[in-house]
Amino acid sequence: MNRLRKKCARISEHPLFMNAIIGLIIINAILVGLETYSYFKHNFSDWITIVDQLLLWIFTIEIVIRLIGSKSIGSFFRDPWSIFDFLIVASGHILVGAHYVTVLRVLRVLRVLRAISIIPSLRRIVNALLLTIPSMGTIMLLLGIFFYIYGVIGTMLYGSIAPEYFGTLHESLITLFQVVTLESWASGLMRPILAKDPTSWWFFISFILIGTFVIFNLLIGVIVNNVEEADDEEKEPSSTDKKLAEVQQELQDIKKLLEKDAR
Amino acid sequence: MNRLRKKCARISEHPLFMNAIIGLIIINAILVGLETYSYFKHNFSDWITIVDQLLLWIFTIEIVIRLIGSKSIGSFFRDPWSIFDFLIVASGHILVGAHYVTVLRVLRVLRVLRAISIIPSLRRIVNALLLTIPSMGTIMLLLGIFFYIYGVIGTMLYGSIAPEYFGTLHESLITLFQVVTLESWASGLMRPILAKDPTSWWFFISFILIGTFVIFNLLIGVIVNNVEEADDEEKEPSSTDKKLAEVQQELQDIKKLLEKDAR
Amino acid sequence: MNRLRKKCARISEHPLFMNAIIGLIIINAILVGLETYSYFKHNFSDWITIVDQLLLWIFTIEIVIRLIGSKSIGSFFRDPWSIFDFLIVASGHILVGAHYVTVLRVLRVLRVLRAISIIPSLRRIVNALLLTIPSMGTIMLLLGIFFYIYGVIGTMLYGSIAPEYFGTLHESLITLFQVVTLESWASGLMRPILAKDPTSWWFFISFILIGTFVIFNLLIGVIVNNVEEADDEEKEPSSTDKKLAEVQQELQDIKKLLEKDAR
Amino acid sequence: MNRLRKKCARISEHPLFMNAIIGLIIINAILVGLETYSYFKHNFSDWITIVDQLLLWIFTIEIVIRLIGSKSIGSFFRDPWSIFDFLIVASGHILVGAHYVTVLRVLRVLRVLRAISIIPSLRRIVNALLLTIPSMGTIMLLLGIFFYIYGVIGTMLYGSIAPEYFGTLHESLITLFQVVTLESWASGLMRPILAKDPTSWWFFISFILIGTFVIFNLLIGVIVNNVEEADDEEKEPSSTDKKLAEVQQELQDIKKLLEKDAR
Repeated sequence: MNRLRKKCARISEHPLFMNAIIGLIIINAILVGLETYSYFKHNFSDWITIVDQLLLWIFTIEIVIRLIGSKSIGSFFRDPWSIFDFLIVASGHILVGAHYVTVLRVLRVLRVLRAISIIPSLRRIVNALLLTIPSMGTIMLLLGIFFYIYGVIGTMLYGSIAPEYFGTLHESLITLFQVVTLESWASGLMRPILAKDPTSWWFFISFILIGTFVIFNLLIGVIVNNVEEADDEEKEPSSTDKKLAEVQQELQDIKKLLEKDAR
Repeated sequence: MNRLRKKCARISEHPLFMNAIIGLIIINAILVGLETYSYFKHNFSDWITIVDQLLLWIFTIEIVIRLIGSKSIGSFFRDPWSIFDFLIVASGHILVGAHYVTVLRVLRVLRVLRAISIIPSLRRIVNALLLTIPSMGTIMLLLGIFFYIYGVIGTMLYGSIAPEYFGTLHESLITLFQVVTLESWASGLMRPILAKDPTSWWFFISFILIGTFVIFNLLIGVIVNNVEEADDEEKEPSSTDKKLAEVQQELQDIKKLLEKDAR
Repeated sequence: MNRLRKKCARISEHPLFMNAIIGLIIINAILVGLETYSYFKHNFSDWITIVDQLLLWIFTIEIVIRLIGSKSIGSFFRDPWSIFDFLIVASGHILVGAHYVTVLRVLRVLRVLRAISIIPSLRRIVNALLLTIPSMGTIMLLLGIFFYIYGVIGTMLYGSIAPEYFGTLHESLITLFQVVTLESWASGLMRPILAKDPTSWWFFISFILIGTFVIFNLLIGVIVNNVEEADDEEKEPSSTDKKLAEVQQELQDIKKLLEKDAR
Repeated sequence: MNRLRKKCARISEHPLFMNAIIGLIIINAILVGLETYSYFKHNFSDWITIVDQLLLWIFTIEIVIRLIGSKSIGSFFRDPWSIFDFLIVASGHILVGAHYVTVLRVLRVLRVLRAISIIPSLRRIVNALLLTIPSMGTIMLLLGIFFYIYGVIGTMLYGSIAPEYFGTLHESLITLFQVVTLESWASGLMRPILAKDPTSWWFFISFILIGTFVIFNLLIGVIVNNVEEADDEEKEPSSTDKKLAEVQQELQDIKKLLEKDAR
């Protein structure tokens, strides 16, 4: 049993193993890409299904090898990326009999995401991106409150004037997201409403001013954070401090010499 | 009287008190959200009114407790957030008989903003955001002059060509705000005007170039400010300076030894 | 003569003088604003003309006082802001008889710009903004070449497909400016052209990718410049260096003591 | 032979030679610009062809002089800018007989790009811009995967609802590029699709949130990189460290004095 574990560990850490998996992920990616063209979908439907099943089973074997090769099942599932790989592959088996063809096909596309869990540099960059999210927590909450209040007010005031944009609270929130991206906020939204309610400009302009200001500050926070972290990484124990330590050592020597002299 | 004050102070500082208020604010938020859906508005109108009145009175009691619990009435009203809480709740009572239903309902929505004054991390972030405003003062004034001049010129030149955009000075200012957000500035504004006045492109392009340049520099100012503040916060009395102080101390010792020696 | 010069200098430096001029500029601003409303234009036309003439003459007297008060005519015209003030006011006199009513009115609006030359904090910020322009020189030239090449190619390829956007070289350049602001670049420009020339997407997408990349780097340059300048301003002769100088002084003292000792 | 090489080297390094070439490039630029106007194209067609041929031959002579003047043919082709110049000019000769008039004319426009290879400050800035590209490698790959997955899902889900936007995978990718630039993403794309599939908002909003977040972080990376590089360039061997070295030297002297004393 232990020998099997070691062998699996050796296999799963072999660069060839990783490259083969990357290769298969690329094949999987090309496959799902081709499937979107009706020509391939109709003429090579059987082939696509076969290759797809093959890929699913190879990925399954890969996960099993990595699972056996890991120190324990617990340690395998401690790594979120392993859980991610496991779920992607497992769901392919669970949903295989299902009639939700679209779900199955979306799952097949999501297998391309496994490239991130396999290629170390991608995994590192995604981890770094995910780490910046918690620092945005409070300002996200603030943004949420801000959107909610404007959403409710928008629905109350313009729900009857522009029902396709402010008919219900969730429609209003989608509309406000559109406004904050500055897409057609004036030509499509404000001007038709302005024609019926000439005071409505304050709603849009205040929303944009506050919204972009808060988002901009949120982004600045992230920039400042990143610059600082980059600065911190750079700072080795400075050469100045090293030299100062030498100076102190020499002073100690001189002091000892003098004290010996004095005695 | 003093005993009552102390008791109120103890209550108002209790975490359970704060959490209860946050809970009620969330209930208030859900209520105003549900009210926007006509189904709830029509079928549960009475319930909503009752819960709303209940919430208003609970918030009133909360404010009274905090008011009594504070050192003095003056110290309570010294904190802008307390004034904010007071006004939000008081206006709910003052306008209760009014026929301005919309105003009353907007007020009810604004009660959600109390989440900011209650949750410390939100209050801190909003305070920080508000503090960046004064440093923008001069450049805001510059932007104002810039908008005003272009607004007047735009009204003079294109008031008769595009009266829906440049008919009056305040319409022009709204239009210029739209142009500075780059929304439909060419397809919706410049091209129709260009068809009648082929030289009008300089107006829009110079406005965008200057406007975005000034705003961009305004934002840079804020970024630089933030980065610097973050830097300043970081700087403790540096280890280098501490070591240097030690070196100086040792030199003093050596000097004394030498001078004693010389005598 | 010299006494007159001193008196004028004293007047022109008096804060009341400055505040009076600022007040008049604000009145001038309100006047040009009111003039855009046809109600005022028609009913108070005479009054506006009179006040306007009055303001022009007061500004003229102001300039004359400042001119006399300056050390020499040369020193007055050495300050670009003085030249600016002089031109704005002088042109008001020169063009007074002209029939170009619009030009005259635009000039009147531009007088509002004098607020910048009068209010020191505004003048400082505009000077700072203008100083960042030269550092953009080379990248502006690069951007110009880039726009020119895409403009010529766009006119060549799409001049017949979309004559309203790419008919002539200068129309193409305006269109490319619109594309770089991302306004209706796809819905208004690319998609109609794509319908006739299915390969045209590379033109727009490459232009946006390169254009925004170059502009983004241009802006980064400005940010980095600003951050550095702010850093440099902050740096006083560092406390570390001061302490080190003291250490060196003390070492000199010790050396002298020792050398005296040795003799 | 060697004498010829030296002469050519001297010519190619002469500032007048460079200025002449810059002048000719400007003439070339004006020529291709004029050619886009049908008036010039029809009336001066012969002249344009003649001047164009003349310019091509002068540029050819220039390249030959520089080729001869370089240490060896290998060293000439080691500089990518020389290769660029060579290709631009050579292709003008190779394609001269071709019937692809458009290709030839585009080539003529691209000759304007030679301004970059000739003017040192432009060459430096383009080199700097190109150097920032490799550092974007991983995040570009991540962005590519992200676009591909959304492209396939978009084609699968909305291919039949909005065939003009999501009909095929490559159309979807162009549409997603449009969405990431925020152009008409709501008014032109999401709302018509939302009318048929009310759950489609998650596709667009999640794409925008993730897309802009990743791109924003990509840009931050570039900014941080640039700021750091600028910082590094600035750092000369600091004056503090120089002074510390002097202090150490003096301490050595004192130590020697003391040791001599002790003996």
